[in-house]
Amino acid sequence: MVAAPASVDTLCVNSIRMLAVDATNKSRSGHPGLPMGAAPMGYALWDKFLRHNPKNPRWFNRDRFVLSAGHGCMLLYALLHLSGYDSVSLDDIKSFRQWGSRTPGHPETFETPGVEVTAGPLGAGISNAVGLAIAEAHLASRFNKPDCELVDHHTYVIMGDGCHQEGVSSEAASLAGHLGLGKLIALYDDNHITIDGKTDLSFSEDVLKRYEAYGWHVLHVEDGNTDVDGIARAIAAAKAVIDKPSLIKVTTTIGYGSPNKADTAGVHGAPLGEAEGSLTRESLGWSYGPFEVPQASYDHFRKAIERGAAAEAEWNAGLDRYSASYPAEAAVFKRMLRGELPEGWDRDLPSYSADDAGQATRKHSQLCLAALGPNLPDLIGGSADLTHSNYTDIKGETGSFQKHSREKRYLHFGVREHAMAAILNGIAYHDSGLIPYGGTFLVFADYMRGSMRLSALSRLGVIYVLTHDSIGVGEDGPTHQPIETLSSLRAMPNMLVIRPGDGNETSGAYRVAINNRNRPTVLALSRQGMANQAGSAADNVALGGYILEDCDGTPELILIGTGSELDLCVQAARALSAEGHRLRVVSMPCVELFAEQAVDYRESVLPAAVGRRLVVEAASDFGWHRYIGLEGDSVTMDGFGASAPGGVCMEKFGFTVENVTAKARALLG
Amino acid sequence: MVAAPASVDTLCVNSIRMLAVDATNKSRSGHPGLPMGAAPMGYALWDKFLRHNPKNPRWFNRDRFVLSAGHGCMLLYALLHLSGYDSVSLDDIKSFRQWGSRTPGHPETFETPGVEVTAGPLGAGISNAVGLAIAEAHLASRFNKPDCELVDHHTYVIMGDGCHQEGVSSEAASLAGHLGLGKLIALYDDNHITIDGKTDLSFSEDVLKRYEAYGWHVLHVEDGNTDVDGIARAIAAAKAVIDKPSLIKVTTTIGYGSPNKADTAGVHGAPLGEAEGSLTRESLGWSYGPFEVPQASYDHFRKAIERGAAAEAEWNAGLDRYSASYPAEAAVFKRMLRGELPEGWDRDLPSYSADDAGQATRKHSQLCLAALGPNLPDLIGGSADLTHSNYTDIKGETGSFQKHSREKRYLHFGVREHAMAAILNGIAYHDSGLIPYGGTFLVFADYMRGSMRLSALSRLGVIYVLTHDSIGVGEDGPTHQPIETLSSLRAMPNMLVIRPGDGNETSGAYRVAINNRNRPTVLALSRQGMANQAGSAADNVALGGYILEDCDGTPELILIGTGSELDLCVQAARALSAEGHRLRVVSMPCVELFAEQAVDYRESVLPAAVGRRLVVEAASDFGWHRYIGLEGDSVTMDGFGASAPGGVCMEKFGFTVENVTAKARALLG
Repeated sequence: MVAAPASVDTLCVNSIRMLAVDATNKSRSGHPGLPMGAAPMGYALWDKFLRHNPKNPRWFNRDRFVLSAGHGCMLLYALLHLSGYDSVSLDDIKSFRQWGSRTPGHPETFETPGVEVTAGPLGAGISNAVGLAIAEAHLASRFNKPDCELVDHHTYVIMGDGCHQEGVSSEAASLAGHLGLGKLIALYDDNHITIDGKTDLSFSEDVLKRYEAYGWHVLHVEDGNTDVDGIARAIAAAKAVIDKPSLIKVTTTIGYGSPNKADTAGVHGAPLGEAEGSLTRESLGWSYGPFEVPQASYDHFRKAIERGAAAEAEWNAGLDRYSASYPAEAAVFKRMLRGELPEGWDRDLPSYSADDAGQATRKHSQLCLAALGPNLPDLIGGSADLTHSNYTDIKGETGSFQKHSREKRYLHFGVREHAMAAILNGIAYHDSGLIPYGGTFLVFADYMRGSMRLSALSRLGVIYVLTHDSIGVGEDGPTHQPIETLSSLRAMPNMLVIRPGDGNETSGAYRVAINNRNRPTVLALSRQGMANQAGSAADNVALGGYILEDCDGTPELILIGTGSELDLCVQAARALSAEGHRLRVVSMPCVELFAEQAVDYRESVLPAAVGRRLVVEAASDFGWHRYIGLEGDSVTMDGFGASAPGGVCMEKFGFTVENVTAKARALLG
Repeated sequence: MVAAPASVDTLCVNSIRMLAVDATNKSRSGHPGLPMGAAPMGYALWDKFLRHNPKNPRWFNRDRFVLSAGHGCMLLYALLHLSGYDSVSLDDIKSFRQWGSRTPGHPETFETPGVEVTAGPLGAGISNAVGLAIAEAHLASRFNKPDCELVDHHTYVIMGDGCHQEGVSSEAASLAGHLGLGKLIALYDDNHITIDGKTDLSFSEDVLKRYEAYGWHVLHVEDGNTDVDGIARAIAAAKAVIDKPSLIKVTTTIGYGSPNKADTAGVHGAPLGEAEGSLTRESLGWSYGPFEVPQASYDHFRKAIERGAAAEAEWNAGLDRYSASYPAEAAVFKRMLRGELPEGWDRDLPSYSADDAGQATRKHSQLCLAALGPNLPDLIGGSADLTHSNYTDIKGETGSFQKHSREKRYLHFGVREHAMAAILNGIAYHDSGLIPYGGTFLVFADYMRGSMRLSALSRLGVIYVLTHDSIGVGEDGPTHQPIETLSSLRAMPNMLVIRPGDGNETSGAYRVAINNRNRPTVLALSRQGMANQAGSAADNVALGGYILEDCDGTPELILIGTGSELDLCVQAARALSAEGHRLRVVSMPCVELFAEQAVDYRESVLPAAVGRRLVVEAASDFGWHRYIGLEGDSVTMDGFGASAPGGVCMEKFGFTVENVTAKARALLG
């Protein structure tokens, strides 16, 4: 059978569709519907607009493409493969969703070069894209010169109905509109179907009007199934509006081409099956076999390789000219792209002796940021509307990143924790050396946990500055007092949780966090003051836990403390030592790092033979039994807190030297 | 000094303002700004519209008032006190934010009768209000008769800029618009100030236009500082629109009355201080001392007592007539209001023997819902767009709660997990016997954790049906595979996490969850099938953990398993028993309930003398060391999962009989 004559556009669009049909049929799993409906917009964008280099997926100045509707990943894999990326071969597509493949069930940056953000949890991708666009705008403002636009790319997104329903996208879109991020262009695959059925079961708002209210430029393409030119015209119109982000609603039919399943929820998350696959081939006039891509389609798509090589070469030549004219700026720019920290970045981090007045660790954190500010231009961050509580400002710097001050590096996220985390991830995904940080109260980690998990999964060096880390919060009461938050974050793979116990440990925590460019860090910081310890050392934070004060010989009991409770351990140990007991105090600012130390070191700090151990932390004991064991005990919280002055809360809940001493004495028998 | 003559309206409004000033000054902590700006709308609403009975805060048919901007709680405490609630005396206000007081730093339902929802985490209150309005509309549809409107009240909200910035409110407002909840009326305190400063730092969207896009009726009162009549007219206009929720933007000045601090972030979250307090008195023409309320103000406000008593009496008379005319419906209604479950509600919950074919626990859950459906009319719930994955439908019932089918009890939340949880909380806060449940994938608990925490803190019997509970999810990959989610939820105070290991345990899990009307429950359910166990029993779930299979004499080793890994323990134990070892298998579907059992029982299940323990769960080991101890081991996950068929994931990550047996053998030495 000979295929009906088709334009090259149609051939390319149907190549995407049929790869999605074939891959999901072969894996008996996956989501063919979105790629089939969104193939025209994917094709129009990638073929006619996207500036990228398939042979160098990490070329800095590429346009970023985000598939926010990550379940439709066969769209992205098809585009990567057809455009000539080495990361996705036809064999990779044939092993879609199989163990060890580079084509997992949702796109993952760490598996597949060319994937810009890990997607799947809905709403995250569009919110990451806001971060990507912020990174571009900020770097452009810092590095571009009248004679050289070193940084100049768009951020494109394809998002679905689900992305629009998730609150995180509302937060991020509102901020993007406020910031006027004109180089952010999102295509909305308006296919009116989600898993439960027609969107009119739960979603009947006017999305374009909503985005207009946010300050976006909005457009509508009525026939997204076939009108490639119309989509291209809309993207061109969006590019022409440079002071507002654009949302292009592209109305499509999910599963377009499938005679019996198109426009139903049945094609959203399940393969068509062999029979419907054949009918779809017929319906689309597709004479090729499974996984067979017509050469004409490859030939057309892979012009991207030549275009990309030329674009990168041109940019490299520009970079050479830039380096000659602006050697200092070029040196910084190149260093950042290499992912290296500047020399001496940590030289001004403060250190303390026990004689220095005690302060809150949130205050120490502010001093660290002040010390890092001038030496680490890579830092960029802010707070979810708690700047003067989190102390996330960089002393000496004024103003923030706004429509007309892109060079500023302070970010006012508004009361939008979830978008903040997603935007920080986006800045990290930009992979241009920026070190993103963001603050809120520790308890509100719960609001942004979805994106914190993606920081950890995608190995992003985001720094979360989370203050008010216990019942020490005081008057704001139990809604604002974290109890289980530390545990819940410590449970997360690849997330470092550091709760420093004084000034030196706070400096050490920043050193660890800044050095960790492939791993997110939570800094859990107190509202209230605490003493500086004679035995503390910044460098010891990297060990996770260490002996802060010790006795002669084998200790009878080990006190393990973190953060504001460390000093209770020290004082209790002194009281009991005065009675002739042998006590050791272990400071454990980071449980995860301690667990990663060699067994000998851990044994030297917490000898197995010493079963009498008392953990003191104004939080849940959940997770501490790894060190408490079956014989130890803890002074921790077993319920929610209460509204009262912080000192009163600490006392009423038993975080006093007297109570710690009494519990230790009970263990000593 | 004699006060300038003031209208009673002004006197009442300023009474609120000055109580907020005095209480925050005395406690040296708190948020005076919002109460000072929003006092007129609070007064207009409570004095002219709110139908409530101060002497019976739990009168069923009262209007619900939600202060979504919970930090402004002195507004609410002042209104409760001035209106004559016994729960808030002047002494209570004087002990604002102190240990043991009934006036905590944010409103908490369990501390203060008259507080309808626990607020503080922004965006939660308005989202709870959507749940309150759903509960009202549903019950009205079920119980009202042409001659008796038994259920008929409004839900009013005061919310601030921060509430609008949080994504959860966007999700909930979009759904409220879709559902056309006409008896939901929100007043938006538009004071353009958040903690960081002017809202134009990060928030410049057109909120009313956005709400119009959601399908809301919107209004604007330009002078919210003094125009009590204008506010009242707007509320009346909002009440007249019965097919859409209403948002009334009321433009105000934060800290109105304070000469030097009004309209600044400084008055948002800090007391005025004595000096500025005095200047504010002058500026408002307030001649009364601290905590002094003019009698005329009390006299006017407390007419609410008489109005409330009359309203309740009238309603009670109506209920009597209703009971006479519709005794069957009245019996159900009264039972629900008493918070009692119907007799025999659990009689059809299925039970199984080991010969019954194994199934996924999500499937068992669906069978439980089918069995509960006809016997438990109190159930109401749905899914965040995963109905056919979570199996949250009630078999035999069709249709869902929509604009024109309020009597239905299935809720299509859309892809809005956070709003779902907040709405479930709202239904529970309605306190009318409805038992709310909602489903999504377990991993997406992260999206709604903020509201799950409020379920736990506020002691709400919400049931979370969370399926796809491990790497057994398979192809969807690590973004969809929970690893640390179980641990993170187990860490939360007052939250029950039940992971049943077969059909009987799933029935038992529902029995526990339904009985727990003051405590939320997570049901963690598998995607994949598992065997039914010979030793399992529904009633044992209430014990948290129990001996599933045992040996003669003291066991050498105890295997502890949950969910889909329970059968691996059973099979490994059998293999090792055949070699002559003495093994016990403990099923531990609910760690929290086990921890609550008497020490003797726990010792009988897990004798301290048996240190060789092996925990098997396809999730993080975080938190399990309480039972593993220092000598035991585990077969658990120490990183994220992978995209591959579920069975392959289980095998590759070591969840096989062979690996469990080998690990056990290694412990046996």
